Amino acid sequence: MSQQPEFPLLRAATPERWFEAAGERWRELLVDHANCEKKAASTALSMMFAYAEDTALAERLSRLAREELRHFEQVQKYMRELEVPFMRLAPARYAEGLRRAVRTREPRRRLDLLLCGALIEARSCERFVGLVPRLPSPLAQFYAGLARSEARHYALYLRLAAERAGDEDWQRRLAALAEVEAELATAPDPQFRFHSGEPTTRTFRTAAT
Amino acid sequence: MSQQPEFPLLRAATPERWFEAAGERWRELLVDHANCEKKAASTALSMMFAYAEDTALAERLSRLAREELRHFEQVQKYMRELEVPFMRLAPARYAEGLRRAVRTREPRRRLDLLLCGALIEARSCERFVGLVPRLPSPLAQFYAGLARSEARHYALYLRLAAERAGDEDWQRRLAALAEVEAELATAPDPQFRFHSGEPTTRTFRTAAT
Repeated sequence: MSQQPEFPLLRAATPERWFEAAGERWRELLVDHANCEKKAASTALSMMFAYAEDTALAERLSRLAREELRHFEQVQKYMRELEVPFMRLAPARYAEGLRRAVRTREPRRRLDLLLCGALIEARSCERFVGLVPRLPSPLAQFYAGLARSEARHYALYLRLAAERAGDEDWQRRLAALAEVEAELATAPDPQFRFHSGEPTTRTFRTAAT
Repeated sequence: MSQQPEFPLLRAATPERWFEAAGERWRELLVDHANCEKKAASTALSMMFAYAEDTALAERLSRLAREELRHFEQVQKYMRELEVPFMRLAPARYAEGLRRAVRTREPRRRLDLLLCGALIEARSCERFVGLVPRLPSPLAQFYAGLARSEARHYALYLRLAAERAGDEDWQRRLAALAEVEAELATAPDPQFRFHSGEPTTRTFRTAAT
């Protein structure tokens, strides 16, 4: 966690080696990216069920989920065009690691879920921006567009969290969760995924490359 | 199940008493309808995770889920405009009843889930059509539009099922599931919901009416 992040919210920048690996393993990345978009929609939908009485929250999360699904369809379209075959990938440690940091009692749980949502979108935004100069042409433009969406999404999650924080010092809680997030996104990680940490294995071209 | 259904797929028409109750209890119906749209999106998303390798399926279900979410947002808008307060409602027996009829082993499970999807959309379509003349003005037009969407959706689910049936006689399986569905949608039911059966309680105006 030595590098200073350029992005607000994030406590540590993505390690350079992750970007190097991504430049070579962009096919795997694309497959995992499709998963992430689906997962983002599913997380928003879970909150719509859990907090159904908060109709303003449901309204915004529903729009967000629709946008994530549209991104999912776009990622699948690029997979088709670039002839990247589907493969089952074990999930990264990232989402599970963040989930463990979420408090279980309400209303803290809701606040934590929203703050984690903001952090995940901020990390995605940072990685999309960093990926743009390292990816082949059609993907580079696509990722630049996604970076703008993710920036809107993290601002949305943060606003939703701030509006619902009540008496709690949400900025302090955000800082604590951001520490957990930064560790997950930067510590050595044997897996390579969209949200994985510093790659421990040497970068290699995969069979599909 | 004495009435002949006008809708293809369905084995029995919705009882007249359900429509009578709906004309009076449209506020509760609207709240449950919001749930149903959310649930429809969530069911499509679950199949996108369960059958991720079937990218053509995922593509179509993703579009369908986006449309259900847009309907959810529209229902919430009508709730706001018509001053219908949110209330927590226990789920109807319908979805759980259908779920129990779904076979557990693949690839039968996938076929059953798609056929159930077709039946649920067909039932929704039938009820929207029947509700149009019984509802106050802005809702009537809205429901007429939704009936057209649901008709597209049941055709989609049916096509997805037929394409994936392999050696199985999917029409025979559809007929079997349609029997289960018809029973759930028409047998006496103490609950009143969008997909409930024949109301057993006398129609009454609710506190909110």
